[in-house]
Amino acid sequence: MALAASVIALLFAYIFFRQMIKADEGTDLMKKIARHVRSGAMAYLKQQYKVVIIVFVILAVVFGVMSFFGLQNEWVWFAFLTGGFFSGLAGFFGMKTATYASARTANAARKSLNSGLQVAFRSGAVMGLVVVGLALLDVSVWFIVLDYFIPAENHLIIITTTMLTFGMGASTQALFARVGGGIYTKAADVGADLVGKTEYNIPEDDPRNPATIADNVGDNVGDVAGMGADLYESYAGSILATMALGASAFATSAVEGMQLKAVLAPSLIAAVGVILSLLGIFLVRTKEDAGMKQLLSALSRGTNTAAVLIAVATFGIFAWLFGTETNQWWQVSLSVVVGLLAGVIIGKSTEYYTSQTYRPTQKVAESSQTGPATVIISGLGLGMLSTAIPVITVGCAIVLSYLCANGFSIDFTAENLSMGLYGIGIAAVGMLSTLGITLATDAYGPIADNAGGNAEMSGLEPEVRKRTDALDALGNTTAATGKGFAIGSAALTALALLASYIEEIKMALIRVGESLPNGVEAAKATLVDFMEAYNVNLMNPMVLVGVFIGAMMAFVFCGMTMNAVGRAAQKMVEEVRRQFRTIAGILEGKAEPDYERCVAISTKGAQREMLLPSILAILVPVITGLVLGVPGVLGLLIGGLSCGFVLAVFMANAGGAWDNAKKYVEEGNFGGKGSENHKATVVGDTVGDPFKDTSGPSLNILIKLMSMVSIVMAGLVVSYHLL
Amino acid sequence: MALAASVIALLFAYIFFRQMIKADEGTDLMKKIARHVRSGAMAYLKQQYKVVIIVFVILAVVFGVMSFFGLQNEWVWFAFLTGGFFSGLAGFFGMKTATYASARTANAARKSLNSGLQVAFRSGAVMGLVVVGLALLDVSVWFIVLDYFIPAENHLIIITTTMLTFGMGASTQALFARVGGGIYTKAADVGADLVGKTEYNIPEDDPRNPATIADNVGDNVGDVAGMGADLYESYAGSILATMALGASAFATSAVEGMQLKAVLAPSLIAAVGVILSLLGIFLVRTKEDAGMKQLLSALSRGTNTAAVLIAVATFGIFAWLFGTETNQWWQVSLSVVVGLLAGVIIGKSTEYYTSQTYRPTQKVAESSQTGPATVIISGLGLGMLSTAIPVITVGCAIVLSYLCANGFSIDFTAENLSMGLYGIGIAAVGMLSTLGITLATDAYGPIADNAGGNAEMSGLEPEVRKRTDALDALGNTTAATGKGFAIGSAALTALALLASYIEEIKMALIRVGESLPNGVEAAKATLVDFMEAYNVNLMNPMVLVGVFIGAMMAFVFCGMTMNAVGRAAQKMVEEVRRQFRTIAGILEGKAEPDYERCVAISTKGAQREMLLPSILAILVPVITGLVLGVPGVLGLLIGGLSCGFVLAVFMANAGGAWDNAKKYVEEGNFGGKGSENHKATVVGDTVGDPFKDTSGPSLNILIKLMSMVSIVMAGLVVSYHLL
Repeated sequence: MALAASVIALLFAYIFFRQMIKADEGTDLMKKIARHVRSGAMAYLKQQYKVVIIVFVILAVVFGVMSFFGLQNEWVWFAFLTGGFFSGLAGFFGMKTATYASARTANAARKSLNSGLQVAFRSGAVMGLVVVGLALLDVSVWFIVLDYFIPAENHLIIITTTMLTFGMGASTQALFARVGGGIYTKAADVGADLVGKTEYNIPEDDPRNPATIADNVGDNVGDVAGMGADLYESYAGSILATMALGASAFATSAVEGMQLKAVLAPSLIAAVGVILSLLGIFLVRTKEDAGMKQLLSALSRGTNTAAVLIAVATFGIFAWLFGTETNQWWQVSLSVVVGLLAGVIIGKSTEYYTSQTYRPTQKVAESSQTGPATVIISGLGLGMLSTAIPVITVGCAIVLSYLCANGFSIDFTAENLSMGLYGIGIAAVGMLSTLGITLATDAYGPIADNAGGNAEMSGLEPEVRKRTDALDALGNTTAATGKGFAIGSAALTALALLASYIEEIKMALIRVGESLPNGVEAAKATLVDFMEAYNVNLMNPMVLVGVFIGAMMAFVFCGMTMNAVGRAAQKMVEEVRRQFRTIAGILEGKAEPDYERCVAISTKGAQREMLLPSILAILVPVITGLVLGVPGVLGLLIGGLSCGFVLAVFMANAGGAWDNAKKYVEEGNFGGKGSENHKATVVGDTVGDPFKDTSGPSLNILIKLMSMVSIVMAGLVVSYHLL
Repeated sequence: MALAASVIALLFAYIFFRQMIKADEGTDLMKKIARHVRSGAMAYLKQQYKVVIIVFVILAVVFGVMSFFGLQNEWVWFAFLTGGFFSGLAGFFGMKTATYASARTANAARKSLNSGLQVAFRSGAVMGLVVVGLALLDVSVWFIVLDYFIPAENHLIIITTTMLTFGMGASTQALFARVGGGIYTKAADVGADLVGKTEYNIPEDDPRNPATIADNVGDNVGDVAGMGADLYESYAGSILATMALGASAFATSAVEGMQLKAVLAPSLIAAVGVILSLLGIFLVRTKEDAGMKQLLSALSRGTNTAAVLIAVATFGIFAWLFGTETNQWWQVSLSVVVGLLAGVIIGKSTEYYTSQTYRPTQKVAESSQTGPATVIISGLGLGMLSTAIPVITVGCAIVLSYLCANGFSIDFTAENLSMGLYGIGIAAVGMLSTLGITLATDAYGPIADNAGGNAEMSGLEPEVRKRTDALDALGNTTAATGKGFAIGSAALTALALLASYIEEIKMALIRVGESLPNGVEAAKATLVDFMEAYNVNLMNPMVLVGVFIGAMMAFVFCGMTMNAVGRAAQKMVEEVRRQFRTIAGILEGKAEPDYERCVAISTKGAQREMLLPSILAILVPVITGLVLGVPGVLGLLIGGLSCGFVLAVFMANAGGAWDNAKKYVEEGNFGGKGSENHKATVVGDTVGDPFKDTSGPSLNILIKLMSMVSIVMAGLVVSYHLL
């Protein structure tokens, strides 16, 4: 069924793509600009894949060697490659579609707002459907293959823990897509703004600005390909982790076949989610003369309908799988509802803190009256305060999904714990089950943004530019919600991965034929046994130091990406200044700027700068494991997850608020465009760029990747400490 | 002996104070300005104490009621008041001295650089000696009193766990001093800079600026009184926690009197530290014609000599206490050395990242060429990266002091754990043992700063102003080191408090006559028993949610204090603008500004704004305890400690780097004073003000206070969950 759903998703993605391609791309100038952006985006992707391939080859060899020495299962090196390949493929298709769609969206907007929305949204849906389709395809094919090859003893536990390590491919791909894409897009954006807007007072997306093409390319590589890879990883990771947790929780179930059902449940929920997301996508349509409000409600109708239907369907799925004799079917279903609700609340809270229709962002705009420094201070203050609701929401989601799944028992028994952790995984799967449509609304944003850029650069009528601006504004709202969703789902996924880490330790011990440090036989050991045997408690200095290092990693990783953007933007600024200085007639619009040079600078900058933070993120969990052992790794993961999650929310919301505070001033408040106050908010917006689009989103990857690396390296750590 | 040392410290503090008072205060104008600052500072302190007294009365009643119901020992309400009183007294004396010293320092600087240094440093030493003297006095008197009253059974364990709750007084006082003082000083500073420097282009400390007196008052209430209360808390907290950990670790020791010796060791180290700090203070002297380099080396000579001698003396102390038959004497002594070394390394790393003589800060200055936004981005990047060394240092200090004290065993047995935690506590005591002199170098900074302000406002010759600037620059270096020291010691102290939290839980169970949840008798339960009985492991969702909330608390607390500064500064800006507008002749220096109004605005702003974050910091640990129980509280403390520590380092270093990047530009680099680049660095400096002087330092308090509140409320939490 998961396989069928994935095929349906890919089929519709193809249909939407064909529909879009058939649409008219507009005037020759529009086509030319679109071609520029497209070739820049593809050139970047090619460069990125070059780096990624090298890293993949190295890691595949490492995994191969580990398998040879019995430190890992023999499938991981190949499966690692398939995961990375599919994730890369999803990014490639998504971005290809986006770059074809932007000019067509601008052209459709010449007809009406609704036509523009249709083209942009359906093209975004291609990304959403390709991601869920390919992820489900990868998961289901591998399950079928392993089901055939793995021997009967501990069958499902071996399958699921083996498959869990496959997530590493998606993680590695996501790392480079998010970090590299994030650096690319913001180096271009910051560089374009600093010289164009601030020094020469020319508007956004002005064709005279040499960095403007690079800026538009950046939207595609960062917000489409990067976001897609990020959520591909969460999606695949949450399913794989929950399968492993299910296999463990139901290992001793007395009911025949229960374990298999628990393992298949996450894929089933995901499959149903794909179909219902597709339904939601078709619901997004309005009358031709629709206004802004109707557009927004059309989008929400699609997402909300999908979410509600998935919630209802879940009860059906679990009633069918688990039977209605016991209460388990509705209890576990409630965990899904908890996950779905948490996603909605985090999205709403992000909107509240970052939209200029609410007080917080208006206050940031207000503080521009006393200059850029107070804009920065108030934005940082807002971002920090805005962490409260998402953290409390995730906290409640953890406790509630845990309690729902284990039948509302707070007794800390091994059985309750296993069921509870399965519930947390199921909540993550539930939250992500709407990904087909939520990612569509996400990917829609940069397409609309690029359409606006195309309209501006090709000098379309002001009426059209106004329509694309409206589409863009809608995209900003969905992007804010989407960012909250991406962070929240990353946190829950990382938690599920963390819980399943213990399953990998168990497998590693079984593989080398050892018992736990306290003598309990590995195959029979419960999670509680593991906690006691490895002393994973808060008085163990190894755990404490691990937590400290995890918290530090979040900051150091952010600092590295912030500095990377700073350095790459610096180069961009110098280039743009040079072109303004040396190319005669460029400012009068008589000479064409050298767009390619700027694209090349961003590409090279991103490629160079993404390596160090990426290597750090991969190495630190390994080193921690070797030095501090299993308790140190768990401390590291918890420290990185908690601090990284809070930091990511802070950065995303502060950045979003600065962006919209600037827009609020541009709408005519506090002096409007061109005033000193406006300049102050531009400073905020520029600082916010790497916050919300580079460092913040990169943290999503960090918290998942560190768990994934730990999972893959579990065998090494265990064997090393047995020496 | 501790009593004797405290009396000696207080005696010398009095002598230094008399010496300083005898010095000439300079011209009439200088006296007048000093009087303004003094009365402003005292007026603020009075206001702050009014709020603090109300809070103290409320909390004392709460503790009284808790004692009545057997949820707390019967001493706590009164001891709580004495701790708060002594901490407040230390702040009062320190600030009084500082406000008397600044004009005298400026006047002495008319003679020579060295004379200025002597007056300022000896006055700073008053603060250092009063803090350690009063803290030791409080601890030793209470020990003698309780030793007399407490019955013989479990004698020392009851004494030490009772005394531990006394730390709450110092914590509460520190909370208001740091948060209130931090808001005060930066509201005044930011307000003065935004209008004076940025809008009207008049220099720092110009007498025409109405907020300039408030700014100078702020240095005293924030950097002298606030810093003093912060370190008073760390000092007392580390001694009390280590006493409790010692009583527990040696409870079953076969050697007669070992337990008492282990309990007294921390006070003994502290006492020897006081005497050797005093010696160090006397070493700080140079030739009359000394240059900047000699001054700095004079200061370092004092601190380093004190540190080395303390390390040596420690070996003597433990050889005498523990005897040299076993290896324990030198093993535990090594823990002290670890603590001392960690303090030095953190201080050096702070200096590296924040001084303009090194590359990182120079790079921030360099980024001013592309405007304020890149200054902010690079400063934030620097701050985030700068967290690596302090965190790794503290991590190593934790592991090493743990291993040293338990004889280098990584076996996780109850005995090793107890000894190891005692070692961590001893490391914290060791780090803080030099407080007498390190606090002197800290408090010296604002005195020199104020001396510069006085020199500027009273129009002394440029030569004198140059000398006070040199003294100020020296103060900036010591202040940066001091901040790192304050954060590092807060982290180690909080960790020691966290470990001793379990001892309080034990006492609470004994008081109500209950066993552990798993049936182990409370009096005989080891730390490991507690971890297992309460399931304080990383798979327990209560722990996980606690960690998340702790990490969030650090950010929310920072956000609140950032916004508080923003709001209070806003009011100050409006007032200064109003005065420039309405008071005729103010800008020509013909009419005197209304300094008092600005002082009043800062006072009121600080008073109003400090309440909400303070109440939050006190309530959250209580609520967490009631909802999530003991594992939730431990999660909260670890999450808050790890994330808060990293965040504090980030904020302190980013703020320091911005400050000095501005100074670097002012020294003539990248365009020098008045250039666009300089303006960009002023924006960075303004954002950095609340970073390094309000929110960052307030986190020191938060991480210690949350532990302390949990300790005091342990009885309530335990009894509530037994219902």
